[in-house]
Amino acid sequence: MEPIIVKYVEKPELHDPVLIEGLPGVGNVGKIAAEYLRDKLNAKLMVEIYSKYLPPQVLMKGDGTLYLVRNELWYYRDESGNRDLIILVGDYQGMSSEGQYELSYRVLEIAKEFGVKRIMTLGGYGTGKLADTPRVFGAATNLEIVEEMKEYGVYFSETEPSGGIVGAAGLLLGLGMELFDMQGVCLMGETSGYFSDPRSAYFVLKIVKEYFRLDMDMEDLEFQSNEISELTTQFKEEEKKEAKKEDLGYIG
Amino acid sequence: MEPIIVKYVEKPELHDPVLIEGLPGVGNVGKIAAEYLRDKLNAKLMVEIYSKYLPPQVLMKGDGTLYLVRNELWYYRDESGNRDLIILVGDYQGMSSEGQYELSYRVLEIAKEFGVKRIMTLGGYGTGKLADTPRVFGAATNLEIVEEMKEYGVYFSETEPSGGIVGAAGLLLGLGMELFDMQGVCLMGETSGYFSDPRSAYFVLKIVKEYFRLDMDMEDLEFQSNEISELTTQFKEEEKKEAKKEDLGYIG
Amino acid sequence: MEPIIVKYVEKPELHDPVLIEGLPGVGNVGKIAAEYLRDKLNAKLMVEIYSKYLPPQVLMKGDGTLYLVRNELWYYRDESGNRDLIILVGDYQGMSSEGQYELSYRVLEIAKEFGVKRIMTLGGYGTGKLADTPRVFGAATNLEIVEEMKEYGVYFSETEPSGGIVGAAGLLLGLGMELFDMQGVCLMGETSGYFSDPRSAYFVLKIVKEYFRLDMDMEDLEFQSNEISELTTQFKEEEKKEAKKEDLGYIG
Amino acid sequence: MEPIIVKYVEKPELHDPVLIEGLPGVGNVGKIAAEYLRDKLNAKLMVEIYSKYLPPQVLMKGDGTLYLVRNELWYYRDESGNRDLIILVGDYQGMSSEGQYELSYRVLEIAKEFGVKRIMTLGGYGTGKLADTPRVFGAATNLEIVEEMKEYGVYFSETEPSGGIVGAAGLLLGLGMELFDMQGVCLMGETSGYFSDPRSAYFVLKIVKEYFRLDMDMEDLEFQSNEISELTTQFKEEEKKEAKKEDLGYIG
Repeated sequence: MEPIIVKYVEKPELHDPVLIEGLPGVGNVGKIAAEYLRDKLNAKLMVEIYSKYLPPQVLMKGDGTLYLVRNELWYYRDESGNRDLIILVGDYQGMSSEGQYELSYRVLEIAKEFGVKRIMTLGGYGTGKLADTPRVFGAATNLEIVEEMKEYGVYFSETEPSGGIVGAAGLLLGLGMELFDMQGVCLMGETSGYFSDPRSAYFVLKIVKEYFRLDMDMEDLEFQSNEISELTTQFKEEEKKEAKKEDLGYIG
Repeated sequence: MEPIIVKYVEKPELHDPVLIEGLPGVGNVGKIAAEYLRDKLNAKLMVEIYSKYLPPQVLMKGDGTLYLVRNELWYYRDESGNRDLIILVGDYQGMSSEGQYELSYRVLEIAKEFGVKRIMTLGGYGTGKLADTPRVFGAATNLEIVEEMKEYGVYFSETEPSGGIVGAAGLLLGLGMELFDMQGVCLMGETSGYFSDPRSAYFVLKIVKEYFRLDMDMEDLEFQSNEISELTTQFKEEEKKEAKKEDLGYIG
Repeated sequence: MEPIIVKYVEKPELHDPVLIEGLPGVGNVGKIAAEYLRDKLNAKLMVEIYSKYLPPQVLMKGDGTLYLVRNELWYYRDESGNRDLIILVGDYQGMSSEGQYELSYRVLEIAKEFGVKRIMTLGGYGTGKLADTPRVFGAATNLEIVEEMKEYGVYFSETEPSGGIVGAAGLLLGLGMELFDMQGVCLMGETSGYFSDPRSAYFVLKIVKEYFRLDMDMEDLEFQSNEISELTTQFKEEEKKEAKKEDLGYIG
Repeated sequence: MEPIIVKYVEKPELHDPVLIEGLPGVGNVGKIAAEYLRDKLNAKLMVEIYSKYLPPQVLMKGDGTLYLVRNELWYYRDESGNRDLIILVGDYQGMSSEGQYELSYRVLEIAKEFGVKRIMTLGGYGTGKLADTPRVFGAATNLEIVEEMKEYGVYFSETEPSGGIVGAAGLLLGLGMELFDMQGVCLMGETSGYFSDPRSAYFVLKIVKEYFRLDMDMEDLEFQSNEISELTTQFKEEEKKEAKKEDLGYIG
């Protein structure tokens, strides 16, 4: 069996396309953002990727039928003349170090075929804390992009993320710059990392929208984001009350 | 060494054969069902599969001799003109993600040689509970098969199995539909998952028997199944008594 | 890098040689027996095997120099006209399932070059108990060898070893019989499995000596074996005393 | 994707060069020593190595940009006519047994291209204790080098390191001597193994400096080393006081 099997559903001509990645990861921030993007832009499926580097698993569609776990590339043709997008989503990332490298490399090979020179990877930055307003951290392949992204409110830190970036969000950029002459940035939404975090995804996607000047409805994600905000606020108030009670307890 | 070594014992001409899989797994439901099927139908050994993806192990036959762990294909020629069967059994499934993919893919290649277009995989669905009457859950490659199998009492759920199907029972269908143009269904007998469960296998195999209109004696498996039923009933009564005692204890 | 690198030190003409394996394992029984055999027979080094399936490690010789971990084949030419021996020893077995298969397969390829048709693997059978006189269990590739080895006091059980034989001792026989047309037997000395067990190795090697009618001094191994016997006796008496004390304690 | 990707930045002509390795490991002793050596000698980058055997990770440079984890070879041309040096440093060692072998083998192939016949690997020897003055242990490929290095104060023990040397520091020598006709020595600075240990690195590097008669400023490393010395002294005194208090406690 070929370690990675690529099925082309369509081979569109694309205009200076940017590869946007959002695979499962910390807080599923990248996955939520990229799948929302795909859905709202009515992107079209172009490539399916099956691989022994993914888990040996099928998933249920909900109607009694199943499908093999996969990664997919979807394309969005921008009618207003901006750059087109290729969106990478999937059920899993590669399950081993080798699998991570092989899958990212293969995606870059495909991206190159379609003329990709620029990459934007989306992910979460797990802090273990509930942030009031999640910042979006950045890490870029060169200083020009650092400066460019700062203008969109992306936060570049001297020390964070201290452990670097593990997985596809980092590897696509690392392999891309060293071996494919591509440049790009990773946007990481601050998240506790304890649950799937649409609020963090919302803040990440707002930057994506603004950067690519996309005409995209953000309402649904904003709604989910607000729900998380309320839960966070409630949770923090509970914590404060709890803390007060304990204080009183000591006094009484 | 070839990663997978296939030894053809016989290359029979088969009539529109269906591949039936029953390898070790949750509650060994699939294994028990498939091996019972093989034995009662007097199926004949056609292929032996050795592989470095299986454990580095020999097993004892009971007479002082040993054999290398393996997967096997057995065939059953249906005299009444129905479809023939190819039955996949074995000591183990592949030990790694890669091994799972490679072994399932190789089995599908062999199945294709013999004209297989339809697959039925058998397994257990672990619920952690002792069911009074185990349901048989299904997951199919397309909606026609979902509808067809519902008529045989197979239970299709919108939400279960929530984690999908891991291992050969899922992968043979997933790879089969995407890469080999095969269709099929996975039948999963409800089981606690805590022990080898012939009762669950009995309910799975009853559907297999009816579906293929097999003239097969189910008595031995029914006997084992009844033993499990009695143990389950006893166990549940013990639990009730225990609960009552505790209640009385609180009152007294 | 070649996954397995074979260095031929010498390519002797051998008379109907038997491959004897003794790699590290349960109680190091096989390793102790095979290395003792090699030393006492003044066997000669013929093949060195290096591999990425072994640990990435060098070991110390004790004089400040190091050597790369390896497996080795040594040969013994029997002057009295009996069959010659090829003895497989080493620092480690393969570290993964794949490594186990690949290394055993490669050893069998080499063994075939030198005309090997018969294999005898040596190992320990861990029981978790200190046996008074360790039995030697057997597992053979066919019934003729079972009968033959019974005459030498080898114990063949219907149920043991219940988990089969894991590792090179099993795999050389399993792959040998299925793919290389070789036959043989595994001799497993009963051992607690808690420490390196020269006593178990002594009982295994006594059978090897008798079977091949070797003119071999067993004194050193017998000495180490007696030391273990004494320790075992002491330990068991301590246990009895301890048990008695506790009994008295309850009375008093 | 090639499992190991080698990018030549420069292909210098070198004079009888020695390969010096210092990758991350116990106490990071080798890494600290080799990177200090590279920096103080103003060595020049000659080769970058990317590999799927390294973690799927990018690291941050501190200015908002990232780089793909890698190993690197740097060269130092000795103006006084001594042997030139090739220094191997990196973010990680290979993540698996296979990766360790493949990466070390590849480095040796590259080293051979540039005429390397001699290797010196640097590492830590973890003792779990805070040594007053860390010894430097040695392990060489042959007795001549053992004798030679003793003159520089390297300590060769009959029994240590008892577990041999695991990883690149051992493997480069083991593979080098068996397959590349190279000779060499591993210098291991005694270290607790509980933290990054510049003091142990200092003592290792002092020997390297003396051996190659390098005109190298050791001040910075000596400064860091002294800091560790002071912390060690403080820690030991705290321990003594603590022990005294407890003694008094028992008396009082």
